[in-house]
Amino acid sequence: MDYLTGKTEKDALDISELLTGEYEGKEVSLNGAIHKIRDMGDVAFIILRKREGLVQTVYEKGAVDIPLKDLCEEAAVEVRGDVAKEDRAPNGFEVRLRGIRILSRPSETMPIAVNKWKMNTSLETKLDLRPLSLRNVRERAKFRIQEGIVRAFRDFLHEQGFTEIHTPKIGARGAEGGANLFRLEYFHKHAVLAQSPQFYKQMMVGVFDRVFEVAPVFRAEKHNTKRHLNEYTSLDFEMGYIDSFQDIMEMETGFLQHMTALLREEYGRELQMLGVSLPETDKIPQIRFDRAKELVAEKYNRKIRNPHDLEPEEEALIGQYFKEEMGADFVFVTHYPSKKRPFYAMDDPEDTSVTLSFDLLFHGLEITTGGQRIHDYQMLADKLEARGMTDEGMEQYMMVFKHGMPPHGGLGIGLERLTMKLTGEENVRETTLFPRDLSRLEP
Amino acid sequence: MDYLTGKTEKDALDISELLTGEYEGKEVSLNGAIHKIRDMGDVAFIILRKREGLVQTVYEKGAVDIPLKDLCEEAAVEVRGDVAKEDRAPNGFEVRLRGIRILSRPSETMPIAVNKWKMNTSLETKLDLRPLSLRNVRERAKFRIQEGIVRAFRDFLHEQGFTEIHTPKIGARGAEGGANLFRLEYFHKHAVLAQSPQFYKQMMVGVFDRVFEVAPVFRAEKHNTKRHLNEYTSLDFEMGYIDSFQDIMEMETGFLQHMTALLREEYGRELQMLGVSLPETDKIPQIRFDRAKELVAEKYNRKIRNPHDLEPEEEALIGQYFKEEMGADFVFVTHYPSKKRPFYAMDDPEDTSVTLSFDLLFHGLEITTGGQRIHDYQMLADKLEARGMTDEGMEQYMMVFKHGMPPHGGLGIGLERLTMKLTGEENVRETTLFPRDLSRLEP
Repeated sequence: MDYLTGKTEKDALDISELLTGEYEGKEVSLNGAIHKIRDMGDVAFIILRKREGLVQTVYEKGAVDIPLKDLCEEAAVEVRGDVAKEDRAPNGFEVRLRGIRILSRPSETMPIAVNKWKMNTSLETKLDLRPLSLRNVRERAKFRIQEGIVRAFRDFLHEQGFTEIHTPKIGARGAEGGANLFRLEYFHKHAVLAQSPQFYKQMMVGVFDRVFEVAPVFRAEKHNTKRHLNEYTSLDFEMGYIDSFQDIMEMETGFLQHMTALLREEYGRELQMLGVSLPETDKIPQIRFDRAKELVAEKYNRKIRNPHDLEPEEEALIGQYFKEEMGADFVFVTHYPSKKRPFYAMDDPEDTSVTLSFDLLFHGLEITTGGQRIHDYQMLADKLEARGMTDEGMEQYMMVFKHGMPPHGGLGIGLERLTMKLTGEENVRETTLFPRDLSRLEP
Repeated sequence: MDYLTGKTEKDALDISELLTGEYEGKEVSLNGAIHKIRDMGDVAFIILRKREGLVQTVYEKGAVDIPLKDLCEEAAVEVRGDVAKEDRAPNGFEVRLRGIRILSRPSETMPIAVNKWKMNTSLETKLDLRPLSLRNVRERAKFRIQEGIVRAFRDFLHEQGFTEIHTPKIGARGAEGGANLFRLEYFHKHAVLAQSPQFYKQMMVGVFDRVFEVAPVFRAEKHNTKRHLNEYTSLDFEMGYIDSFQDIMEMETGFLQHMTALLREEYGRELQMLGVSLPETDKIPQIRFDRAKELVAEKYNRKIRNPHDLEPEEEALIGQYFKEEMGADFVFVTHYPSKKRPFYAMDDPEDTSVTLSFDLLFHGLEITTGGQRIHDYQMLADKLEARGMTDEGMEQYMMVFKHGMPPHGGLGIGLERLTMKLTGEENVRETTLFPRDLSRLEP
């Protein structure tokens, strides 16, 4: 009988292993894709692309039993060779080849130059050829940083006593209502795709006190802007036993601090590659919605056209104001008007025309919406009625409040938007692996 | 200007803090839901439910300024009191109350007794009242274990150099084809929900060498069994530069070993509560598909009816065989017939009627399907043609292979099934927070 024993080590080494210095002067084996070949005559530099970065290997004619012309870019290879210090090579070392084994060969040459530092390619082309364009090391670096953001979110919340949950994406009705629902037929019933895990995460506060979820959400919005997607990854949390909605903003601030620390520590290579300076998260200013509108109207000599909502230009100016006035990268805008928030938002008892809610702006773009929710059944039922809504399709959600819920609140962060602002991109599609928008359903 | 500084500490303590012993004899504050009230006359025991477990508090008449009759089960409270050692209480301590503040009250009494050790309730009722029934500490413990499984999956793969990805769930066509696709209209185009992230994770092997994803998948299967769901959470990984499909099984074995270690270390309370013995993962036997069929046919005197597939009863008997013969909880069944595997599965060069693929059975139930994939463009194109398929809707997937891909393979694990087998449940709905099946779309 053959057994599996969990042996995952291989002879082929990773860059991190080679960087220990332990292998200098020794023969090693490593694998990767041939990223670039530079034929200098007597020698050729064959640059391998591995998940951690690039490795320079040196092909000396005669030293390797495979002719150089048999090698081509984007072939997958396993090589053997001697490690040598070389300051001009990526990571400060090179591998002088003794043997090459070709694992697979491409059948066509690349339609785009992924081995250039910056690809001189339109966003449209990059997206059409997404699985290829991501082979460019700067393109893929954005998604390493995205991974770091998600790790930071989970690790921080786990430390704070949150439990991770997985809630269904097909349901009978949406949490936010409205027209932006994708509809489908579910075994002869009408169903919709989740706009957010809102109802589920609230229900789960009654079970685990604090919960989070990282999952896709779906919005059938007919916006075609640089900041909207029709499917995105939402970082959601919801926490019970709050004293006020300030607790939620403190928790988000704590996450952002943990995120910048983790990125600085473990994703330095990617940050440097993209020229990213991490944002200031030590202290994040907060300002009331109405006051924020006044401030930018005064400073930038701008008329307030809609007192109940922030226009995108106003958000941008609020970001600019706080950057200019106090060097802040983030700002919490609080107390949004009740009529612009969903029925479950908690009104401010001191002024019921506004809610105990907030948006977080990052360089003038909303990346989070959050706030305290109503936890009292009667208050929730009254608010539904005042809005002319019924609890149809929300019976189980409403039931939870009949049976006791602590004061609670939470938020949702758009992962791709946060990645976009962090990496200094201008279009959210740049930081989405395979974006879905009005016109794009593939790849 | 007010600032947020990331302050997340509260006066109210967690059970883990109280367990340090540091607070014995001291006054503390803590919050929770009133799980149970036992009125003994002069004193009453008020059991609080917190995310980590239960806390016994002692209400002595006169010592607290709120009458006992004002308290009720499922109210959310914050209490003050003195910590005292008490061996008969959960966690070995109790809190003698000095003050109670009611944060919220239920408006109706519970329709089910969530504060019993075992709820004497049908699965159907539990699911109808899911957000309430999960307040039972044994019900919710299953989802703490589920959290541990997911943490182990991510942490292990991260250590092994895998990058986490987020791929779209709405697409133009499914990876597996067939009839079990949910269809929807996407801005006047036909779209489907992802049956698996198969194509995306393969494409991403060309970018990051090793990738994983934890995300929902959707199967419009008309099965109504104890082991099928129409939406479930899939733990997927895909790895490049493999020497053989054995590497994939070794990686899964490594994950299972890490999982049992993490559960033993950090989820002991929940394992004990549910009476779970962790499975044996040190070494996991593997057996070829055809040989497994023969073995159970011989031992259990059973006719082989379908040589190309395993019937559920056969899977169960294979599990039984390996448990009886060698005490194994898991068994890898390898070399499934080619005609039962998707077109992208790599055929065994020594016998092309079978594939370099496997299922992992856990106590006789399939919890994983995986294997090596075809990485050569021409081989893939030939196999499509041989099956009478076209590359329509798969142009970008096929394109990736034209431009070079390393030998690779991967697997998908059904999270709810793995949780079910681990916790000894008989129905996968028991280990799904909010199941979706033929008849259930709510809550």
